[in-house]
Amino acid sequence: MKFAVIITLKKDVLDPQGKVVEHTLQSMGINSLKNLRQGKYIEIDLNETDEKKAHNIIEDMCKKLLVNLIIEEYKIKKI
Amino acid sequence: MKFAVIITLKKDVLDPQGKVVEHTLQSMGINSLKNLRQGKYIEIDLNETDEKKAHNIIEDMCKKLLVNLIIEEYKIKKI
Repeated sequence: MKFAVIITLKKDVLDPQGKVVEHTLQSMGINSLKNLRQGKYIEIDLNETDEKKAHNIIEDMCKKLLVNLIIEEYKIKKI
Repeated sequence: MKFAVIITLKKDVLDPQGKVVEHTLQSMGINSLKNLRQGKYIEIDLNETDEKKAHNIIEDMCKKLLVNLIIEEYKIKKI
Protein backbone atom coordinates (compact mmCIF):
# COMPACT_ATOMS: atom_id res chain seq x y z
CA MET A 1 0.00 0.00 0.00
CA LYS A 2 1.45 3.31 -1.11
CA PHE A 3 1.17 6.63 0.67
CA ALA A 4 2.39 10.14 0.01
CA VAL A 5 3.33 12.44 2.86
CA ILE A 6 3.53 16.16 2.18
CA ILE A 7 5.46 18.13 4.78
CA THR A 8 5.26 21.91 4.74
CA LEU A 9 6.44 24.66 7.04
CA LYS A 10 3.66 26.14 9.17
CA LYS A 11 2.17 29.31 7.73
CA ASP A 12 3.94 31.69 10.10
CA VAL A 13 7.36 30.08 9.80
CA LEU A 14 9.82 31.85 7.50
CA ASP A 15 10.96 29.85 4.47
CA PRO A 16 14.31 31.35 3.38
CA GLN A 17 14.96 28.59 0.82
CA GLY A 18 11.60 29.25 -0.81
CA LYS A 19 12.29 32.99 -0.81
CA VAL A 20 15.58 32.45 -2.68
CA VAL A 21 13.81 30.39 -5.34
CA GLU A 22 11.04 33.00 -5.53
CA HIS A 23 13.49 35.87 -6.04
CA THR A 24 15.45 33.90 -8.62
CA LEU A 25 12.31 33.22 -10.65
CA GLN A 26 11.28 36.87 -10.41
CA SER A 27 14.71 38.02 -11.57
CA MET A 28 14.30 35.63 -14.51
CA GLY A 29 11.32 37.70 -15.57
CA ILE A 30 8.37 35.79 -14.12
CA ASN A 31 6.42 38.76 -12.80
CA SER A 32 3.13 37.06 -11.97
CA LEU A 33 4.76 35.06 -9.16
CA LYS A 34 3.22 36.12 -5.86
CA ASN A 35 4.55 33.61 -3.39
CA LEU A 36 6.49 30.35 -3.30
CA ARG A 37 7.08 27.94 -0.45
CA GLN A 38 9.10 24.77 -0.39
CA GLY A 39 8.29 21.57 1.40
CA LYS A 40 9.11 17.89 1.37
CA TYR A 41 7.36 15.05 -0.41
CA ILE A 42 7.84 11.49 0.79
CA GLU A 43 6.51 8.39 -0.95
CA ILE A 44 6.16 5.39 1.33
CA ASP A 45 5.42 1.81 0.32
CA LEU A 46 4.15 -0.42 3.12
CA ASN A 47 3.68 -4.19 3.46
CA GLU A 48 0.28 -3.77 5.03
CA THR A 49 -3.13 -4.52 3.56
CA ASP A 50 -5.32 -2.88 6.22
CA GLU A 51 -5.64 0.78 5.23
CA LYS A 52 -6.40 2.01 8.73
CA LYS A 53 -3.42 0.19 10.22
CA ALA A 54 -1.19 1.46 7.42
CA HIS A 55 -2.37 5.02 8.02
CA ASN A 56 -1.52 4.70 11.70
CA ILE A 57 1.97 3.42 10.91
CA ILE A 58 2.61 6.40 8.62
CA GLU A 59 1.25 8.76 11.28
CA ASP A 60 3.69 7.17 13.72
CA MET A 61 6.63 7.66 11.31
CA CYS A 62 5.72 11.32 10.88
CA LYS A 63 5.56 12.01 14.59
CA LYS A 64 8.70 10.05 15.49
CA LEU A 65 11.05 10.99 12.67
CA LEU A 66 9.82 12.64 9.49
CA VAL A 67 8.17 15.82 10.75
CA ASN A 68 9.40 18.54 13.09
CA LEU A 69 6.04 19.26 14.66
CA ILE A 70 7.20 22.56 16.14
CA ILE A 71 7.61 24.22 12.76
CA GLU A 72 6.11 21.79 10.23
CA GLU A 73 2.75 20.28 9.44
CA TYR A 74 1.94 17.22 7.33
CA LYS A 75 -0.72 15.62 5.17
CA ILE A 76 -1.00 11.89 4.43
CA LYS A 77 -2.63 10.65 1.23
CA LYS A 78 -3.13 7.17 -0.14
CA ILE A 79 -1.83 6.95 -3.72
CA MET B 1 -4.22 30.99 -8.32
CA LYS B 2 -2.36 28.36 -6.30
CA PHE B 3 -0.50 25.37 -7.63
CA ALA B 4 1.46 22.52 -6.09
CA VAL B 5 4.45 21.05 -7.86
CA ILE B 6 5.67 17.63 -6.79
CA ILE B 7 9.20 16.80 -7.90
CA THR B 8 10.45 13.23 -7.58
CA LEU B 9 13.53 11.37 -8.70
CA LYS B 10 12.94 9.19 -11.75
CA LYS B 11 12.25 5.55 -10.91
CA ASP B 12 15.69 4.28 -11.87
CA VAL B 13 17.64 7.01 -10.10
CA LEU B 14 19.11 6.05 -6.72
CA ASP B 15 17.77 8.01 -3.74
CA PRO B 16 20.45 7.78 -1.01
CA GLN B 17 18.67 10.28 1.26
CA GLY B 18 15.47 8.26 1.09
CA LYS B 19 17.40 5.07 1.82
CA VAL B 20 18.88 6.59 4.99
CA VAL B 21 15.41 7.58 6.22
CA GLU B 22 14.11 4.12 5.28
CA HIS B 23 16.87 2.32 7.22
CA THR B 24 16.41 4.62 10.20
CA LEU B 25 12.68 3.87 10.35
CA GLN B 26 13.36 0.14 10.00
CA SER B 27 15.91 0.26 12.81
CA MET B 28 13.25 1.99 14.91
CA GLY B 29 11.16 -1.16 14.58
CA ILE B 30 8.84 -0.32 11.70
CA ASN B 31 9.06 -3.65 9.89
CA SER B 32 6.25 -3.23 7.39
CA LEU B 33 8.16 -0.50 5.56
CA LYS B 34 8.96 -1.73 2.05
CA ASN B 35 10.27 1.36 0.30
CA LEU B 36 10.63 5.10 0.85
CA ARG B 37 11.60 7.83 -1.59
CA GLN B 38 12.04 11.52 -0.96
CA GLY B 39 11.08 14.34 -3.23
CA LYS B 40 10.33 18.04 -3.18
CA TYR B 41 7.02 19.82 -2.81
CA ILE B 42 6.65 23.40 -3.96
CA GLU B 43 3.58 25.59 -3.42
CA ILE B 44 3.31 28.45 -5.88
CA ASP B 45 0.90 31.37 -5.73
CA LEU B 46 0.42 33.24 -9.01
CA ASN B 47 -1.18 36.59 -9.92
CA GLU B 48 -2.94 35.09 -12.91
CA THR B 49 -6.60 34.33 -13.39
CA ASP B 50 -6.43 32.30 -16.60
CA GLU B 51 -5.82 28.70 -15.52
CA LYS B 52 -4.22 27.62 -18.77
CA LYS B 53 -1.82 30.56 -18.81
CA ALA B 54 -0.95 29.96 -15.17
CA HIS B 55 -0.27 26.30 -15.89
CA ASN B 56 2.08 27.29 -18.69
CA ILE B 57 3.96 29.70 -16.43
CA ILE B 58 4.46 26.94 -13.83
CA GLU B 59 5.57 24.52 -16.56
CA ASP B 60 8.10 27.15 -17.64
CA MET B 61 9.42 27.56 -14.07
CA CYS B 62 9.85 23.79 -13.75
CA LYS B 63 11.81 23.47 -16.98
CA LYS B 64 14.00 26.55 -16.41
CA LEU B 65 14.82 26.26 -12.73
CA LEU B 66 12.91 23.97 -10.41
CA VAL B 67 13.40 20.56 -11.97
CA ASN B 68 16.53 18.75 -13.11
CA LEU B 69 14.92 16.98 -16.06
CA ILE B 70 17.79 14.51 -16.41
CA ILE B 71 17.10 12.80 -13.11
CA GLU B 72 13.78 14.21 -11.91
CA GLU B 73 10.17 14.28 -13.03
CA TYR B 74 7.36 16.59 -11.91
CA LYS B 75 3.61 16.85 -11.51
CA ILE B 76 1.63 20.09 -11.40
CA LYS B 77 -1.69 20.30 -9.55
CA LYS B 78 -4.06 23.19 -8.98
CA ILE B 79 -4.87 23.51 -5.27
